[in-house]
Amino acid sequence: MPKVSKRGQNILSSPIRKFLPLMLKAEIEGVKVFKLNVGDPDIAIPPQLLPAIKKYKNKSLGYAPSPGISEHVAAWLKYYGDFGVKLKPENLIPTVGGAEAILLAILATTDPGDEIIVFEPLYASYKGFAAMASVKLVPITLKIENNFALPPAKDIIKKISRKTKAIVLINPDNPTGAVRTRAEINRLVKIARGHNLFIITDETYREIVFFGQPGSVLQVPAAKNCTILVDSVSKRFSCPGARIGVIVSYNQVLMSAVLKFAMVRLSAPTLEQIGLIPILKNARAYTKKITREYKKRRDLVFTALTKIPGVKCQKPNGAFYIIAGLPVKNSEDFVKFLLTKFRYQNQTLMLTPAQDFYVTPGLGKNEVRLAYVLNTQSLKQAMLILKKALEAYKNR
Amino acid sequence: MPKVSKRGQNILSSPIRKFLPLMLKAEIEGVKVFKLNVGDPDIAIPPQLLPAIKKYKNKSLGYAPSPGISEHVAAWLKYYGDFGVKLKPENLIPTVGGAEAILLAILATTDPGDEIIVFEPLYASYKGFAAMASVKLVPITLKIENNFALPPAKDIIKKISRKTKAIVLINPDNPTGAVRTRAEINRLVKIARGHNLFIITDETYREIVFFGQPGSVLQVPAAKNCTILVDSVSKRFSCPGARIGVIVSYNQVLMSAVLKFAMVRLSAPTLEQIGLIPILKNARAYTKKITREYKKRRDLVFTALTKIPGVKCQKPNGAFYIIAGLPVKNSEDFVKFLLTKFRYQNQTLMLTPAQDFYVTPGLGKNEVRLAYVLNTQSLKQAMLILKKALEAYKNR
Repeated sequence: MPKVSKRGQNILSSPIRKFLPLMLKAEIEGVKVFKLNVGDPDIAIPPQLLPAIKKYKNKSLGYAPSPGISEHVAAWLKYYGDFGVKLKPENLIPTVGGAEAILLAILATTDPGDEIIVFEPLYASYKGFAAMASVKLVPITLKIENNFALPPAKDIIKKISRKTKAIVLINPDNPTGAVRTRAEINRLVKIARGHNLFIITDETYREIVFFGQPGSVLQVPAAKNCTILVDSVSKRFSCPGARIGVIVSYNQVLMSAVLKFAMVRLSAPTLEQIGLIPILKNARAYTKKITREYKKRRDLVFTALTKIPGVKCQKPNGAFYIIAGLPVKNSEDFVKFLLTKFRYQNQTLMLTPAQDFYVTPGLGKNEVRLAYVLNTQSLKQAMLILKKALEAYKNR
Repeated sequence: MPKVSKRGQNILSSPIRKFLPLMLKAEIEGVKVFKLNVGDPDIAIPPQLLPAIKKYKNKSLGYAPSPGISEHVAAWLKYYGDFGVKLKPENLIPTVGGAEAILLAILATTDPGDEIIVFEPLYASYKGFAAMASVKLVPITLKIENNFALPPAKDIIKKISRKTKAIVLINPDNPTGAVRTRAEINRLVKIARGHNLFIITDETYREIVFFGQPGSVLQVPAAKNCTILVDSVSKRFSCPGARIGVIVSYNQVLMSAVLKFAMVRLSAPTLEQIGLIPILKNARAYTKKITREYKKRRDLVFTALTKIPGVKCQKPNGAFYIIAGLPVKNSEDFVKFLLTKFRYQNQTLMLTPAQDFYVTPGLGKNEVRLAYVLNTQSLKQAMLILKKALEAYKNR
């Protein structure tokens, strides 16, 4: 029998999705599971989205142009313009979610064996895409005690080798919720320019910040030629099922390579590109509202966590995640316990063990990521369940 | 300034799309362009598709499960069952069009530097995906004189090296329209089994065959463990903009790697998975009808081409493409001539130069691919324009 490739053997299961079978089993048994594991927003989609799709009356449903439907691209330009980022159509290509934008950014900047510097813990899909591209991630570990701040320049420069091609910056960050300061961004831009590296900046959660104004690395003039922005409608418009994202750069040599990749995979979905046009043109009407809601939830979850004995966490400033250190040895084992053994009022909880967000083996073993994508009432109950479950786990 | 990767530099522009700017210019000048270049069907989509999408009433638009929405997967199982291919849900994962299925199949079977045997001319995206995966395509050249039949086993075996991991079979074939005989398929299966290779079988055009019954390599019992099927709704349901395909295999080790890749990229579009459920369950009601229409067009185009002096072609048995050898030295130059200089009744034609469908440099220079995706009246006019244009080109 022929053998699966090394990259196929090496790739890890998604930390977010690998406990799915246990969760489904609990649900079949009639247990209510509060799902804080996936960043799948519960908030209603913008009211214009489905009507805009339902207006589609063509007899055919053809490929969108590989560089995007022009009205959709124009809507993105308006969107970025509202944040002070002036783009031309050739700076931007719609993708199949932020996921495809990440893959294309990696492929356009690296060859097999090359290295990308990342800050860990990091959104686990980067590990998967690096495996698919046969590229090595070189991690710099951020600490919960330090609220996941970036280290000084010298600690980053130390990790650069002849094979380093890019640095990834997720801002606001998944999974930590950290929001980068202008000083942190300037530090990275200076390093990238000094060492001829690309910055892959993932701004999927741009508007979900709890103080200050949403921004972009692309606002930094010095970042222009070395920055690739990957972005997505999934979180800010609560519609990850639409599978629309975008890859953006002022670097035209890079964008011409990305366009060729985009032509190979043909196009992003036609109906969703159309449906998102009115929403992109007036994004802040929606994103301001949901950010207020996420802030309420952040406050509730953070306050509740700090009251649970043995739990360590820091107040996140953006996105809708929080990393919590738990008083357990192995959070994978604790999550299994939640799904298979623990019930409180016939309810339980699903969290994501944090260790797979780390590149370095052995780190994050006592940590979990919580996505606060449920309403405040559910979150209140979920926090109670977490408290009870930690007690029961300790006494098991 | 940081540099684009080698794979980003090496990837070619899509042969189908690279003349787009010239075509748009002609259209802006008011010229009617008959587009026989892209496999973008003009036929109306199945009437159930949009209504099924428009029924969607959820307040959220969440990720579909990475292994697909269960009702959508069930609809595919019914679809394959109708062709005598019995599958379980774990044998199949919905993808973002056939394109993503091809990429995942390549990634699951090869590592950088590995080789895949292909028959040229071949669907050009394979060249692009191989570049993205840093894999080498090893071509076996098929001849127009021989109606693009597969060569004897010994000529295929000759191309196998220690690095060969898979053989690609597109059936019915894009761009030649060839439909493989059972003998050809058995030959490949025997070779694959004998040399521990995977067969990546691309059956996007399955139902569009002009004699005999549509089938699948998966019907061959000996092919079970070595075959990966990539498939798509784009052509058979005339909806390439839906971006839904599927990757299928009985090999569970392989499918577990594919599932991990699928989790990294999260999911295929939610609305389109839902919309296609009723259509997949009763596919033949639609595909029989469109196949009759494509047969009419095939007959018209083939007959017209054989009457143009100097044109060489063979009758294709499936898909909706035909490769024609033209009495020109360089078909790229001829296509440019069509778009920029030639007008007949203020109309012209867009074709795809065939040379980029070849892996071997220098082959196919006088060939073009025609996609008969227009109605018979338009095709009749297009064939007249082609005849006039070849005369004008000769006398230019």
